[in-house]
Amino acid sequence: MEVTKKLADFIVSTVLGNIPPEAREIGKRIILDLLGVSLAGSRDPMSRIMTEYIKDTGGRPRASVWGKKFRTSSSLAALANGTFGHALDYDDINRNMRGHPTVPVLPAALAAGEEAKASGKELLEAFIIGVEVETKLGAGMNPHLFENGWHPTAILGAMGAAAAAARLFNLSGEKVCMALGIAGSLASGLRQNFGTMTKPLHAGRAAQNGVMAAQLARRGYTADPGIVEAKLGYANAFSGAGKYDLNKIVANLGDPFDIVSPGVGLKRYPSCARTHPAIDAMLDLVVQNDIQPEDVEAIACAGTYTTPTMLIHSRPRTALEGKFSLEFCMALALMERRVALPDFKDQKVQDPKIQELIRKVTFSVRPDLNSLEQSGNPSTTVKVTLKDGRVYTKTVDEARGTPGNPLTAGEVKDKYRQCVKGIQSKKDMEKTIELVEGLENLKRISTLADLLQGASH
Amino acid sequence: MEVTKKLADFIVSTVLGNIPPEAREIGKRIILDLLGVSLAGSRDPMSRIMTEYIKDTGGRPRASVWGKKFRTSSSLAALANGTFGHALDYDDINRNMRGHPTVPVLPAALAAGEEAKASGKELLEAFIIGVEVETKLGAGMNPHLFENGWHPTAILGAMGAAAAAARLFNLSGEKVCMALGIAGSLASGLRQNFGTMTKPLHAGRAAQNGVMAAQLARRGYTADPGIVEAKLGYANAFSGAGKYDLNKIVANLGDPFDIVSPGVGLKRYPSCARTHPAIDAMLDLVVQNDIQPEDVEAIACAGTYTTPTMLIHSRPRTALEGKFSLEFCMALALMERRVALPDFKDQKVQDPKIQELIRKVTFSVRPDLNSLEQSGNPSTTVKVTLKDGRVYTKTVDEARGTPGNPLTAGEVKDKYRQCVKGIQSKKDMEKTIELVEGLENLKRISTLADLLQGASH
Repeated sequence: MEVTKKLADFIVSTVLGNIPPEAREIGKRIILDLLGVSLAGSRDPMSRIMTEYIKDTGGRPRASVWGKKFRTSSSLAALANGTFGHALDYDDINRNMRGHPTVPVLPAALAAGEEAKASGKELLEAFIIGVEVETKLGAGMNPHLFENGWHPTAILGAMGAAAAAARLFNLSGEKVCMALGIAGSLASGLRQNFGTMTKPLHAGRAAQNGVMAAQLARRGYTADPGIVEAKLGYANAFSGAGKYDLNKIVANLGDPFDIVSPGVGLKRYPSCARTHPAIDAMLDLVVQNDIQPEDVEAIACAGTYTTPTMLIHSRPRTALEGKFSLEFCMALALMERRVALPDFKDQKVQDPKIQELIRKVTFSVRPDLNSLEQSGNPSTTVKVTLKDGRVYTKTVDEARGTPGNPLTAGEVKDKYRQCVKGIQSKKDMEKTIELVEGLENLKRISTLADLLQGASH
Repeated sequence: MEVTKKLADFIVSTVLGNIPPEAREIGKRIILDLLGVSLAGSRDPMSRIMTEYIKDTGGRPRASVWGKKFRTSSSLAALANGTFGHALDYDDINRNMRGHPTVPVLPAALAAGEEAKASGKELLEAFIIGVEVETKLGAGMNPHLFENGWHPTAILGAMGAAAAAARLFNLSGEKVCMALGIAGSLASGLRQNFGTMTKPLHAGRAAQNGVMAAQLARRGYTADPGIVEAKLGYANAFSGAGKYDLNKIVANLGDPFDIVSPGVGLKRYPSCARTHPAIDAMLDLVVQNDIQPEDVEAIACAGTYTTPTMLIHSRPRTALEGKFSLEFCMALALMERRVALPDFKDQKVQDPKIQELIRKVTFSVRPDLNSLEQSGNPSTTVKVTLKDGRVYTKTVDEARGTPGNPLTAGEVKDKYRQCVKGIQSKKDMEKTIELVEGLENLKRISTLADLLQGASH
């Protein structure tokens, strides 16, 4: 089956008119969401190191580094912005990818688009095409891609980013195959690096790989034209011989778009998605019953068996550990009645009151949820017992932000505003939201890119 | 087993005094060889595309692009020079790597060394250390690394390049672990891209990955400190779970150095190493018996069963196909009494006289060599039958240039001179040879780097 060629045909021929309105609306929403978490992420220590590295490397000023008031080559801008976008692990997720769809593609598309002087419409098309390519590759290459130890955001993202960049450079179908062939040989990222600065680097590198592959293919650089399906090619290497399904990659390309079904989850809280059902439940219980921290005797959580394998920090000491700690998230929800960006500080995690509450939280596995687990649903029950004997219980199957229980357009905008507070001026913040909402009508994406450089740096 | 830490200890602590004189001499010889084939490769069409790409990308001028009269960032210089170095597939080979040892490491070491204002002694140390790290990783990770479809030069090369660059930046042991952790997540390269411009890109990318990993680690960027041996780490991902031997990586680190035993093969001819025993045999027969092309009735070659799986072009039409054609190499040896760089032109391959000779060449498999095959020996017998009935036969087990039958120091210098003819002036050519021969005494490698920029561009 000529999978690479079919992907290239899709990349070359899809136009906004073929993209259903629902997909376009979701597309713009996840773009806004990523821009917000990227600008917030641009203030992380790892982003400062990346910025220093890029300034030191140099590069012709063609594309904007978000939140940093300077421009560099489009491939280095993609590297920087992709790393910023994943620094907080606060960006969107997709089930077929088993990873983060927007963060490898949007930085590549915006950087290549700035270089190509693209319009908002061209950016939106290329972005949705790029995400569709990587998620459908994920549908055919998972679960083995993931289980073999690869970070799908990195591996699949390189191809999505190449697709988007190739489209913005208006490459021919043949050259798109070359770009995918090159990107296949650049893609990498090991899951062992989760929990280190190299995890976000995977997203930035994927974005950079896509831009570089498209830039080389544009100039006539060659690669194998059937890289996805070939015997020693991309699917074979990353998923393993015979452990992928080519049909799942191309059978439903764009029909429906993956961002419509199974959809994209947006994170309401800046912590591992596995904590989200419990946080939703806890916030509901605390607010509805006006529970005070000092009245709580015990917090018992129960959920699926894979949940504790992801939430590995029962006794967290740092903010990064707190993101993967059910105990910290429960304590925070109880004490602050919110789980928000400013709370993810080492100091907050180490606060004696928080640490005292953390010790009251327990987690148990509910074997009756094992079948639910198969569908990727991390249903969680939270039971709060007060010192006076009262007991409150709530179960959340689908957390707010998941495709089945999505954030409203207003909530997405509010998340954006919270993320960029102190980075963009209020005026620029609202202008950015407006430009993304009307992306199809934006003449030059440089207008948007200028706003993303931010007021301070 | 703490493999990554042991590699880091080796990288940090090895000094020229611990490196036996034989390893140093081989090290300088393979450096000179790579510089020559890289300068020759810098004139290839793919190198022109890469140069355009890099000029367009920009980059602070810190390191030299060989043969091109300009400087760029050290990571981009490593990318360019590594690609040039492998463009002609004329660079050295190592059995444990199942790939090319010098081409990912030397461009990284020279670029990082230029940035760090290193001496020749520091360059030589870092280069030998980098090659040792990648070849020993190869000893533990092959054959599965190769059989899974990965290009070992790319995958192992990224770690060798990171080791060399980290050493030149004088990183601490802890930061060296981080550099290896980052490089593990950047390494990639699919064998399906063999026979396209992306194969040489793999070598360039490996060099660039190593420099970038060391540059990020130097600034405090983090990664998993045990990337080689960890459950979801580098060996697991590339070789497959349980399909590697950690002991083989560290048991004989530097004792002996891999470049001493099993050694490094240098290519006497700019064609696939599998053609080399037959070319040696044919040249001997032709010269010793003064055989004229017009007197030849048939040329029958016989060898190991894997040979035809590599030499796939029986009826070549292009120079690139000619590199993987036993028939062309035999015809050329007979007609020109040499197999040299200027002969690998499309026009030469298409020459009617060559094409007529090509049709006289046959190849058969000798089943009695199947056990030899296991040791990687491509023994070949050439039988030339003249029209007057006379028959000449010669068998070559180890081609000239292999570790068991090495080129002399003089031959390596002659190869260098042939490679750089028209690129360096005669004076610069001899000066380069002299500097490499006395590398331990060179105060600043920038002196060497300046010469490598070449006279024309």
